[in-house]
Amino acid sequence: MPGDSRAAGTPHSRPSSSEEPPGLEDRELLLAAAYVSDAQYNRNVPFETSAQAIRLYHFYNHWTMRAATYFFIWVDLALALFEEPAVFPLPFLVTSIAEVLCLTAFFGRLVHFAKVTPQKVFWKDTKNICVMVTIVLTLIDLVIYASLEAVNIRGVRWSRALRPVFLINFPESRQIRRAFRSIRNTLPDILYVFLLFLFSMMIFSLMALKLFGDRDLRTVEGSPYFTNILDIAFELYVLVTTANSPDVMMPAYELNWWYSLYFIAYIIINTYIFMSVFLAVVYNNYRKHLKNEIHTLAYLKRHKMTEAFNILKVKVGTEFVVKEARWRRLVKVVAPGISSSHLELLLRISDEGQTGHVDKMNFLRLADLLNIRVVAINIKKHPLETWMPRVYQSSTSLLVQKMVQHRIFVWVYDVIILINAIFIALDEKDSLISYAEWLFLSLYIIEILLKLYTYEPSAYFGRKQFWNWFDTLIIIAALLATVANTTIQARKYNSQQVLDIVLILRILRLLRVIVSIQRFRVIVTTLINIGPTMLTFGGLVLVVYYAFAIIGMEAFHGKVHFLDPSSGSPDAAVCGNPALKDSAFARGRYCKNNFNDLASSLVLLTELTVVNQWHDILSEEEAFALLADGFALATHQAAKLYFIGFHVVVVILIVNIFIAFILEAFFVAYSLEKSEVETAIEKKIQELGVGVQEEDMKDGGLIDHVDTKDSGFSADEGGNKKRDLRGLYFRIASKKYKTVDTLLQQMFESEIAPEGKDPSLEEILNFSPKKLNFGNSA
Amino acid sequence: MPGDSRAAGTPHSRPSSSEEPPGLEDRELLLAAAYVSDAQYNRNVPFETSAQAIRLYHFYNHWTMRAATYFFIWVDLALALFEEPAVFPLPFLVTSIAEVLCLTAFFGRLVHFAKVTPQKVFWKDTKNICVMVTIVLTLIDLVIYASLEAVNIRGVRWSRALRPVFLINFPESRQIRRAFRSIRNTLPDILYVFLLFLFSMMIFSLMALKLFGDRDLRTVEGSPYFTNILDIAFELYVLVTTANSPDVMMPAYELNWWYSLYFIAYIIINTYIFMSVFLAVVYNNYRKHLKNEIHTLAYLKRHKMTEAFNILKVKVGTEFVVKEARWRRLVKVVAPGISSSHLELLLRISDEGQTGHVDKMNFLRLADLLNIRVVAINIKKHPLETWMPRVYQSSTSLLVQKMVQHRIFVWVYDVIILINAIFIALDEKDSLISYAEWLFLSLYIIEILLKLYTYEPSAYFGRKQFWNWFDTLIIIAALLATVANTTIQARKYNSQQVLDIVLILRILRLLRVIVSIQRFRVIVTTLINIGPTMLTFGGLVLVVYYAFAIIGMEAFHGKVHFLDPSSGSPDAAVCGNPALKDSAFARGRYCKNNFNDLASSLVLLTELTVVNQWHDILSEEEAFALLADGFALATHQAAKLYFIGFHVVVVILIVNIFIAFILEAFFVAYSLEKSEVETAIEKKIQELGVGVQEEDMKDGGLIDHVDTKDSGFSADEGGNKKRDLRGLYFRIASKKYKTVDTLLQQMFESEIAPEGKDPSLEEILNFSPKKLNFGNSA
Repeated sequence: MPGDSRAAGTPHSRPSSSEEPPGLEDRELLLAAAYVSDAQYNRNVPFETSAQAIRLYHFYNHWTMRAATYFFIWVDLALALFEEPAVFPLPFLVTSIAEVLCLTAFFGRLVHFAKVTPQKVFWKDTKNICVMVTIVLTLIDLVIYASLEAVNIRGVRWSRALRPVFLINFPESRQIRRAFRSIRNTLPDILYVFLLFLFSMMIFSLMALKLFGDRDLRTVEGSPYFTNILDIAFELYVLVTTANSPDVMMPAYELNWWYSLYFIAYIIINTYIFMSVFLAVVYNNYRKHLKNEIHTLAYLKRHKMTEAFNILKVKVGTEFVVKEARWRRLVKVVAPGISSSHLELLLRISDEGQTGHVDKMNFLRLADLLNIRVVAINIKKHPLETWMPRVYQSSTSLLVQKMVQHRIFVWVYDVIILINAIFIALDEKDSLISYAEWLFLSLYIIEILLKLYTYEPSAYFGRKQFWNWFDTLIIIAALLATVANTTIQARKYNSQQVLDIVLILRILRLLRVIVSIQRFRVIVTTLINIGPTMLTFGGLVLVVYYAFAIIGMEAFHGKVHFLDPSSGSPDAAVCGNPALKDSAFARGRYCKNNFNDLASSLVLLTELTVVNQWHDILSEEEAFALLADGFALATHQAAKLYFIGFHVVVVILIVNIFIAFILEAFFVAYSLEKSEVETAIEKKIQELGVGVQEEDMKDGGLIDHVDTKDSGFSADEGGNKKRDLRGLYFRIASKKYKTVDTLLQQMFESEIAPEGKDPSLEEILNFSPKKLNFGNSA
Repeated sequence: MPGDSRAAGTPHSRPSSSEEPPGLEDRELLLAAAYVSDAQYNRNVPFETSAQAIRLYHFYNHWTMRAATYFFIWVDLALALFEEPAVFPLPFLVTSIAEVLCLTAFFGRLVHFAKVTPQKVFWKDTKNICVMVTIVLTLIDLVIYASLEAVNIRGVRWSRALRPVFLINFPESRQIRRAFRSIRNTLPDILYVFLLFLFSMMIFSLMALKLFGDRDLRTVEGSPYFTNILDIAFELYVLVTTANSPDVMMPAYELNWWYSLYFIAYIIINTYIFMSVFLAVVYNNYRKHLKNEIHTLAYLKRHKMTEAFNILKVKVGTEFVVKEARWRRLVKVVAPGISSSHLELLLRISDEGQTGHVDKMNFLRLADLLNIRVVAINIKKHPLETWMPRVYQSSTSLLVQKMVQHRIFVWVYDVIILINAIFIALDEKDSLISYAEWLFLSLYIIEILLKLYTYEPSAYFGRKQFWNWFDTLIIIAALLATVANTTIQARKYNSQQVLDIVLILRILRLLRVIVSIQRFRVIVTTLINIGPTMLTFGGLVLVVYYAFAIIGMEAFHGKVHFLDPSSGSPDAAVCGNPALKDSAFARGRYCKNNFNDLASSLVLLTELTVVNQWHDILSEEEAFALLADGFALATHQAAKLYFIGFHVVVVILIVNIFIAFILEAFFVAYSLEKSEVETAIEKKIQELGVGVQEEDMKDGGLIDHVDTKDSGFSADEGGNKKRDLRGLYFRIASKKYKTVDTLLQQMFESEIAPEGKDPSLEEILNFSPKKLNFGNSA
């Protein structure tokens, strides 16, 4: 916990700051750097402040260590692809060795963490306990399974459902944990709405039983209609997902059209109103809790920066400040790759009066300053202009350049793309059309060459020129694939894979039209902005899907088989399972919807998320479930619970949180304005006269002779600052590609109280709603 | 327009206010009352200020006139039930006479309005033009249809689809118009997202064509799979609604499981992300435009109150005020039914210093004050206590009362209700159980009697005691129906209708459990709070459904017939249409889903809103469409357009606005606090010592000896105010049952800038985004 770390850290650090200027130990610099780095990345890991522990902590946060951890997590998760039931079968020995290897890596990471963090904190943190318990459980499961295997009894690898625990519980997966906490905090409120919803469903079920139960009605399949209260409740639950509308209503509606009012009332109340209320409650709670957490994070960041300041400060006049040299050393440790021009810029912003030291207020901003990507821009001539200025500056050449820069050039190519789309839609058998493909391909290549001729190449392929990269890569890939395909076809060997890729690439080219329409670009940019954050939900969904897929595989594996219908086997029509004879499942050719391997399971779960027809799938799964009489888990009721559980978790909780997030992110991204710190930097850049007007930069494809360069600017450190910056231009990297935390913080920035004084640690801890859980909110 | 009315009104009114005290003409009082009343109900109808026009305007706003207008609107809409194709057929002569009658009424209302409002304004208002054009068109249509009928040619009653115009365009339907304006304002933004969405769908369609078109795949029905670009686009559009998932994917998935990635990508991008973006854009715009409108309304209200003040003001000292007597006269004209105690309370609040006059600031609040329902409460003794105090105060009687008031009493009855639920779920054939029904009924009646014994009856059935009324009415109805049913059964005559009603009533009783659980009550109260506002959406949906139903009836009427399967007719299996042989439509027994009358059409449209299976319905409608070759409208493509159009309008626009509204309303209602004016009133009530603690009032069913009375308190007007108020208690009527405007205003109250100075009319008009449309925003 930060509290402990401060308690441990302060006695060591305080003396050095009173020792005055030069004597700054390496340990103290590293400690300050660790605080700043933690503040920059919003890490809240309490660590020991001994010299060794700090070095270990830096190593712990090193990207190689984190990458290795992720690598092992993914290997562990991917093992399900190779284990029985496998997509690509591997012997048990291989997968188990791989799993033990992963477990060892996780254990090593945990030991490393234990060395860094105080003992007391380590054992209090549920994350660590979770990981340890999971490692032990997995080992036990492995041993049991192996021993059973040795005597030829097939066991259940139940511990596999626990694998996502590693993905959640390592400190790197803050975002996923935050999403989970969001869900956990929303649960109590959701629960009451859910109970009320169940109650209303129960009332409607009773009504249906009384209204239709004694009528001797039959469904289309000829089974009794609405005679059993549990079946009715289940059908009505499915009706909420709209999956069985209007079939469920038809028998009653045929009887008398007044009965349709019953179903319409049900749909309005339960499908529309309750589902909206779910969304409202989830959204409301999501915002509330997120705001609390971001609030806490902001305070903790400030606290860490204050710690760092206390280590480095010296007294100048009446106030404590950090000397310039010390500040430089710190920044170099925190951000080793920083260019000296960038460093100078940051110093200018932090030390406005050029007094040679940075005061506290400006020092505290450092973490935010480091988070803002500033791009140093070097305005360069086109290489052709340097090599053969006469030719490049000739009137023909200038005309070409003017033409390419003209708006009509873009329009012409938009028209070409649309014509291409029509040609793609036409039949390809025609040789004229397949020749036209070559024509289009050459037209696109000419376009790229013309642009490269007109614009400076390294600017055209600048780091942020997403659409230029997209264009060029697609064209090159299409070219290669088309050539490969032609070669293959010439040899009468038709490779479907290559052809598919060619086709998809050819069509993806059409996406370029979006770039020329301003309104489309705004929407797409917004979507790309929130893209990285959506990945958090990817992680969340993966965790849930993985656990459900493993359980589903253990429970329903092998109950349904897909047999090629052309094989003529009688089993093909019943999915290899006689119990499915004449079922809607087999009739609908759903045989491939099974739990026979991880890939199929994940596809099936996606289908269930889209909710449609899931009760078709489900009603047949019941059939399997009944079949698997030897298999205790897969009883009739348990199978239903599995599917309903999945629906409740995924559709009611996760999809709603996803929608809530998109809503919130879209509102913010639509009106995305620069943060306070960004504005400060921009002002400074303008003041120093080294800014590039952002309007010039806006049009992704039309940057003129501008070179984006991030490093490699050599400057003698220290003096001559003004000269260093001359001839070099800066701009704030585009508003895209923000980190999750930045986006979230920006969401609530305006609502977080302005920071006046330093909050004491007590205040921060009091502010936090869950004191004991604090370590977990890291 | 208000501007014109002021321009016309001021020259007349200004002299009277400078003429000093007594000489207030009736005309001026009425004019001021009209302004205040308009401000109170947020009406923005510009009216002439001549004495006759004002009187006409008061008459125009009288509730009888408005009720009559609504009556004729509903009659006009209901005509579709009786016209060919009819639910209850009536001869054309009858319906056409009824329609002409309605049109006359509408015309009369319009003429009335024209007399009230300035000519210039009248002819500029699109609402009036719309109504007139619709009247003329309807008459033309009637004449054409009648002449064709006379020569035995069946015409198309196309003007019927215009009938909702009347519902929208009379000034009374402000809320519906506002919702429509919301939609109209959202359209441009939605349009771009929709185009991008279509573009993405097109890209995916092309991919599907190229990937699957040449594979010679077959769907389950055996038709070619993904070979025609238009069919693919349509299938993919349907996939967005999730209606054909996973069927649409199965053939490709069977070929190779990698192809499922194509569909998963499509679902993530188009179903989840785009649909969320639609919601986000709709929600964002909805809020923005609503805020603007409410803002304008607030300014207009203030403006009207200022007008009224200017008419009534006299100069006292340095400032203009309204004398108490004049204020009283005004309030009595504006709210004729107001009780004198309520009037005194309002005067006390408005004239805080008891100076005998009301200053401008307090006068401007009058409209808000009148909108707040203050209930005068008279604490009364139980009638039994008055009649036989000895018995009622005996220890046994007190014990009974204490018992009934105890919490356990509620719990006991909750348990009884739950047991009752179990009995309902059990088979009713058992005579023991049908006797138990009588037992439960008597238990419930005993409960109500006990409560009436304990609580003062007129308090128990107070105006706001929703649950008590609900309880009692349900029990009495169940009692009557059960008795009726038993009588009928005894005569061996089984009436299904009566039995159904008994069953439903019996089950509705179970709803009472909700009241005893605090968290449930909060949710239900919130839902009831936003209930009236949801009715706006009911109106909106009705308008859209009605128009689509009429069009659908004209286009698809008689293409599908429901014939009783038990009749054994061969046509029954194909819904009376040979083209439907072997179709999924007929197999699914969807024959009742047709456009043969208004009721069926509305049910079918509801099914389409729930989106599932709509492409089954649709694909068959195409079949009809093809059949109706003589019928120009119902071509293949037009039929598809009808259904897609309905989906876009209802699901993408209206359902999203509905969700947006529920989200917003739920956020507000969850944290519903008293408005500023309510607080002022409450403070005054407390100051005067005539308040009832709201905590005492909260528990709907447990109000002790309190009588709610709104009028009938006789007090000599004028002096002795203190005495008038003594012995009488006030409280602000519960937070429920707010008007739409109040709820909306409260939503944005905090965001509307505090009103400092009087805004000039120019400011208001400049504020409004659409100057020319201003009359329409009424």
